[in-house]
Amino acid sequence: MQFQLTNDFIEQIAQLIAKKDGNALRELLQEFHFADIAELIEELKSDQATYLVKQLESDLTSEALMELDDDVREKILERLSPIEIAAELQELDTDDAADIIGELDETIQQKVIDKIEDQERAADIVELLNYDEDTAGALMAKELVQVKETWTVAGCVREMRRQAENVTRVHSIYVTNKEGKLTGRLSLKDLLTAEAKTEISDVFIPKVDYVTVHTENEEVARIMQKYDLEAIPVVDDKGILVGRITIDDIVDFIKDEAEKDYQMAAGISQDVEADDSIIDLTKARLPWLVLGLLGGLGSVYIMRGYDEALATHVELFFFTPLIAAMAGNVGVQSSAIIVQGLANDNVKGSLFKRLLKEVGLALINGLALGVLVILFGALTQMDQQVAFTIAISMLLVIIVAALVGTFVPIILDKKGIDPAIATGPFITTSNDIFGIFLFFFIAKIILNF
Amino acid sequence: MQFQLTNDFIEQIAQLIAKKDGNALRELLQEFHFADIAELIEELKSDQATYLVKQLESDLTSEALMELDDDVREKILERLSPIEIAAELQELDTDDAADIIGELDETIQQKVIDKIEDQERAADIVELLNYDEDTAGALMAKELVQVKETWTVAGCVREMRRQAENVTRVHSIYVTNKEGKLTGRLSLKDLLTAEAKTEISDVFIPKVDYVTVHTENEEVARIMQKYDLEAIPVVDDKGILVGRITIDDIVDFIKDEAEKDYQMAAGISQDVEADDSIIDLTKARLPWLVLGLLGGLGSVYIMRGYDEALATHVELFFFTPLIAAMAGNVGVQSSAIIVQGLANDNVKGSLFKRLLKEVGLALINGLALGVLVILFGALTQMDQQVAFTIAISMLLVIIVAALVGTFVPIILDKKGIDPAIATGPFITTSNDIFGIFLFFFIAKIILNF
Repeated sequence: MQFQLTNDFIEQIAQLIAKKDGNALRELLQEFHFADIAELIEELKSDQATYLVKQLESDLTSEALMELDDDVREKILERLSPIEIAAELQELDTDDAADIIGELDETIQQKVIDKIEDQERAADIVELLNYDEDTAGALMAKELVQVKETWTVAGCVREMRRQAENVTRVHSIYVTNKEGKLTGRLSLKDLLTAEAKTEISDVFIPKVDYVTVHTENEEVARIMQKYDLEAIPVVDDKGILVGRITIDDIVDFIKDEAEKDYQMAAGISQDVEADDSIIDLTKARLPWLVLGLLGGLGSVYIMRGYDEALATHVELFFFTPLIAAMAGNVGVQSSAIIVQGLANDNVKGSLFKRLLKEVGLALINGLALGVLVILFGALTQMDQQVAFTIAISMLLVIIVAALVGTFVPIILDKKGIDPAIATGPFITTSNDIFGIFLFFFIAKIILNF
Repeated sequence: MQFQLTNDFIEQIAQLIAKKDGNALRELLQEFHFADIAELIEELKSDQATYLVKQLESDLTSEALMELDDDVREKILERLSPIEIAAELQELDTDDAADIIGELDETIQQKVIDKIEDQERAADIVELLNYDEDTAGALMAKELVQVKETWTVAGCVREMRRQAENVTRVHSIYVTNKEGKLTGRLSLKDLLTAEAKTEISDVFIPKVDYVTVHTENEEVARIMQKYDLEAIPVVDDKGILVGRITIDDIVDFIKDEAEKDYQMAAGISQDVEADDSIIDLTKARLPWLVLGLLGGLGSVYIMRGYDEALATHVELFFFTPLIAAMAGNVGVQSSAIIVQGLANDNVKGSLFKRLLKEVGLALINGLALGVLVILFGALTQMDQQVAFTIAISMLLVIIVAALVGTFVPIILDKKGIDPAIATGPFITTSNDIFGIFLFFFIAKIILNF
């Protein structure tokens, strides 16, 4: 059942485009799913893709455009006239249409809006463009099925038929009072089972989850997940129903957030993909490497300060990569758990309890690892005192790294900064350098060099 | 509109439980959402939670049970009799009921199944239990709205009213032929707009995405995301419609996978949370730390082998943490991008091209970082030849680390192993030790010690 894009097929399409055979293209692709068209477009050059978009019906290409990578879409939109763009938008829900307009150059935006035939729709899109990014207002679509409390079931079905024309999928039927304020929802089941003459006010459910236009995306995602909602209505400051957010937008949001966190943990800023250009990939990766390098140079500086130990305790220097690795690993583990906990809202209880727990955890891990170090020392005939010193300082480094890993994300979160930034090279690097400093500091005290 | 769980409220509930005042509990909580009940239960002791579950109506508690952490749910189920468990299952969709039964001790499973009143439902649940984990069969629910091609629109609405009783939400109406084979779907819009006497075969959409009971969860998630589906029908080997999977299950799956990948990248095996016990957290974290330690001890071993360089080029030893950090960071960056690319199915093109790209990227980054090292050397009056040697070996270490980071996940993926495992301490540690070896190996050649 699944469509598989082959090189032969891409070649066939490319040839039809070269021959400018629009009819053949339309015939070949008319039964395709827009997601498959999008996959095909991603494989074509911008000019080829633009020609294809112009040739195919916009009910197919508009949804396909939404599926494309931002940069691919940008290159195609640049090659379309305002009228052509407006024609594509015609087929999209208002939220998607607003997203596309938002990506356009400001000089083009107004031209495209002017070319939208349906005035009401154009006004809806402009309204959406005015909401703050990352809020429910910018995420919602204006399309929804809305009935009044005072209608009968039969009138409701009649009105739904009309409204459903503009709505791709009926998620929920929202009930409003005469001022347009959201008062409840209607289950499809009740609508199907109720008598035709029953008034909506007798069958509707007066309890409904909602968000306001100002609710942040993250909170919308949290609510929809917690309450297993497939759509949620959005109201304005006066409680008037102005739009609805559907779960597919939230799925995209969750995936994007997870990918962002993952990339941040791996030391990649900006949203890049394996197939991006070397320049984009370098921009996303080099800054973090430079940070790591500076940390490493800091370690060099610290070790130079302890070079009197070279004569007597050279083994300490052999152990520095191990100490740095342990500090980094423990720090990342601690921060990753806290970052996920913060995201899932299950970091509760007092900070003091958490501190005790982290210290306890670090003690157990540090002791176990310390025993291994002493064992290694014995097996390789190391000076016992040095092996013991290394184990002790490693234990302390691990405790400090765990505390840093735990509290840096919590502090960032309290200050309104994305705590995920703490899991990446930031924490590894600072723990590396701090760990090495602490290691030599403690070793100096114990070994008295 | 959102419920906020306060300590006072938890205390109030705990007191009512202590007084065994079931009536007051029922009255206080009857209007609550099950997700809020679940939050409350998480804060109670197992005995308190069990008492609460027994007192409240099972339409509230059964869904709440589904929302709980596995270990919390397990402790409550242990304290319920088979009859009580069966009563909870009564209110759940078959997929959730099967999940709960699957978690029970094998000796209890059959007893619970025997206590399920509705025989057909019990058979459905047993069927679901028999499918392989991680396949659509185990993920799907039996509840769905199914109509026959030969029915009229009016008959269809009548039948839907009956079927809808068992279905919490109507996602899609699936159309089958007389043998029960899936032949298409019906949009609610068409159903609402068609004449009562129209036959379904005249209005239904003969194109429908579906999966089979054997399709793996990952593929189901990919298809539902790609085609923006909110539900997908599941057919057996003969094409007969046997169930449907809804997007909320897929949202959970996507979140779980993302969290697993993230934890693996951070060196945490098993699914743990910030609030888990110290023992569970140690089990998840210590093994990776031991791996890191072994890598570190390997580095110690390598450096001991180059101790003749101590007399002449001690700076090399000061730079080992830096080299290890660079090797680790570059490796994690490369593997993270590939792991995400593999997950999103956009790692295309030949391996050779990818190799060239990675080498190019590593060259650019390595040269930039090398210049910084030479600059640092000049600023701190290092031996120029040593600074140059360090820059050169670091460049080579970075190239190798990038290649390892890129190809280990690709190879793991080809062998059917989750490539995400490669991003964690596994790649950091092997790159650490390999990097340090390479560093000294190259330095020895250049500096000729």
